Amino acid sequence: MDFQLTPPAQDSGANCPFCEGREHLTPKEIVRYGGDLAGGWKVRVIPNKFPALRVEGELDRSAAGQYDRMNGIGAHEVIVETPEHGRELADLPAEHVALVLKAYRERIVDLRNDTRLRYILVFKNSGRDAGASLRHSHSQVMATPVTPRTVGMELASAREHYQLKERCIFCDIMEAEHQDGSRVVLLDSHFATHCPYASRFPFEMALYPRRHMSDFVRCDDEMLLHLAQHLKEVLRRMNKALNNPPYNMVLHTAPCIGGMPARKSYWDTLEADWHWHFEILPRISNVAGFEWGTGFYINPTPPEDAAAFLRKVDL
Amino acid sequence: MDFQLTPPAQDSGANCPFCEGREHLTPKEIVRYGGDLAGGWKVRVIPNKFPALRVEGELDRSAAGQYDRMNGIGAHEVIVETPEHGRELADLPAEHVALVLKAYRERIVDLRNDTRLRYILVFKNSGRDAGASLRHSHSQVMATPVTPRTVGMELASAREHYQLKERCIFCDIMEAEHQDGSRVVLLDSHFATHCPYASRFPFEMALYPRRHMSDFVRCDDEMLLHLAQHLKEVLRRMNKALNNPPYNMVLHTAPCIGGMPARKSYWDTLEADWHWHFEILPRISNVAGFEWGTGFYINPTPPEDAAAFLRKVDL
Repeated sequence: MDFQLTPPAQDSGANCPFCEGREHLTPKEIVRYGGDLAGGWKVRVIPNKFPALRVEGELDRSAAGQYDRMNGIGAHEVIVETPEHGRELADLPAEHVALVLKAYRERIVDLRNDTRLRYILVFKNSGRDAGASLRHSHSQVMATPVTPRTVGMELASAREHYQLKERCIFCDIMEAEHQDGSRVVLLDSHFATHCPYASRFPFEMALYPRRHMSDFVRCDDEMLLHLAQHLKEVLRRMNKALNNPPYNMVLHTAPCIGGMPARKSYWDTLEADWHWHFEILPRISNVAGFEWGTGFYINPTPPEDAAAFLRKVDL
Repeated sequence: MDFQLTPPAQDSGANCPFCEGREHLTPKEIVRYGGDLAGGWKVRVIPNKFPALRVEGELDRSAAGQYDRMNGIGAHEVIVETPEHGRELADLPAEHVALVLKAYRERIVDLRNDTRLRYILVFKNSGRDAGASLRHSHSQVMATPVTPRTVGMELASAREHYQLKERCIFCDIMEAEHQDGSRVVLLDSHFATHCPYASRFPFEMALYPRRHMSDFVRCDDEMLLHLAQHLKEVLRRMNKALNNPPYNMVLHTAPCIGGMPARKSYWDTLEADWHWHFEILPRISNVAGFEWGTGFYINPTPPEDAAAFLRKVDL
């Protein structure tokens, strides 16, 4: 009974708990930008009403025979990006998008104070096929008590590259992409977005700060405004090119270091070999048996074609 | 224009190229069990009309700046499991399912003769949400010129366990599961299916041969008939419990060794530390930003509940 295999009717917003005027339907708010509970707010951060991980309790790491288990300690929050139902992130004014990014920054900084946590993941599911259970535009914050598998692999690869070359792999990728140019989607003075070489999904994009910078939370307000402008344009190009596709957006930033042994030296290397970035994944193709069985992806749209198409969009 | 974001109307079979009587619409057949082209056949293997990888040409491994590239050499075939449109694998007689499994075995053995290939992946996408582009029941065979990422990680983990304990990790898992019992779905004299501990997806299942056996192709006809009976029951339980869900089924078997250096000794170890199995993945929950960003999976149905539910199904 828990799984709906047929799509529900499009949510009209009639009972949406994220809308202005229904603040009483959500758990107690954590942060609010602008206005008050009676209205006029722009962005709200609230605990997820159905959290996958909870702050309360102990990890209780234990062995279960040959397996491992621990409790679901962590945090799961929702960033309501706008009081207006049906208004998408890309269509908010840049100053408003910057507030959403400020909420990302504030929540990461705050959650890192909990030394049990290893990583703060900020992501956005937009559209039912991208896993969004509510249509009202929102992002999510999840703090995990272990370093996520993919984050760990990415960190290790970046470190390996740095140890060999004493250069950041993300800076190297950016340099190569800008010289080549064929996969570049948008380039301005502060940020760069390209469709990655041999990318997994059609129209997959990666957004990097142009200056080397390991940790998203080091962005100051001015930089977040530049980022908001850049992100808005990238998303608007994607929306126009693909007719508002469902998509996932994932922030890859530095992990928590509170619980790390040798805190100082770990961080020193991380500063040099890591580079925060966003992954933007339109969900227009299906993952099927081949992808589950191999970890490889069949992408029918070469990233060079996707980037050319996105560059040509008439906004 | 390549991506349909709205589901197409359910395919009635009116123009299905896999149906009896439309054999002329498919590329030249590779193998056929029973009957002839005029009819009466039970299972046909044909090249995929839109292959992701092709047998013709050279790999041409080359560097593209810091990236790597090679041509899409390999094979991509379709196993049409029945001449009847709308008849599902689980509903075919066991003797017929055994023919499908025989086709799996025959194609793996044959494709391994090409020493450029590293792995033969056999999988099944059933239902549109599981990536099937045609409704007519079929499996696919893809041969890749590199060891797939997930296969490589699984092989390495199994090897590491073996080096530490001189025991097969899959045999160990089976032993633990049968002692515990709570995740067992079906157990008979030759095969065992359980919902894996902390599995990624609701109702995910793993099917193992009970006797240690590294390579699927070593199954004789009698064993394939046992497997057909077991697989049929597992799929019928899943179909009844979840109302014929879309699903992926992936065979994990030993890799090709044709191109391996030190062929003999590699194979000798593989014999001991690898154990072929099927993964069965109902596609009833969505993969979203959290999963892409972490490589972790949120599973709302504990495998213990799923297994209990599947055991109780009244067939």
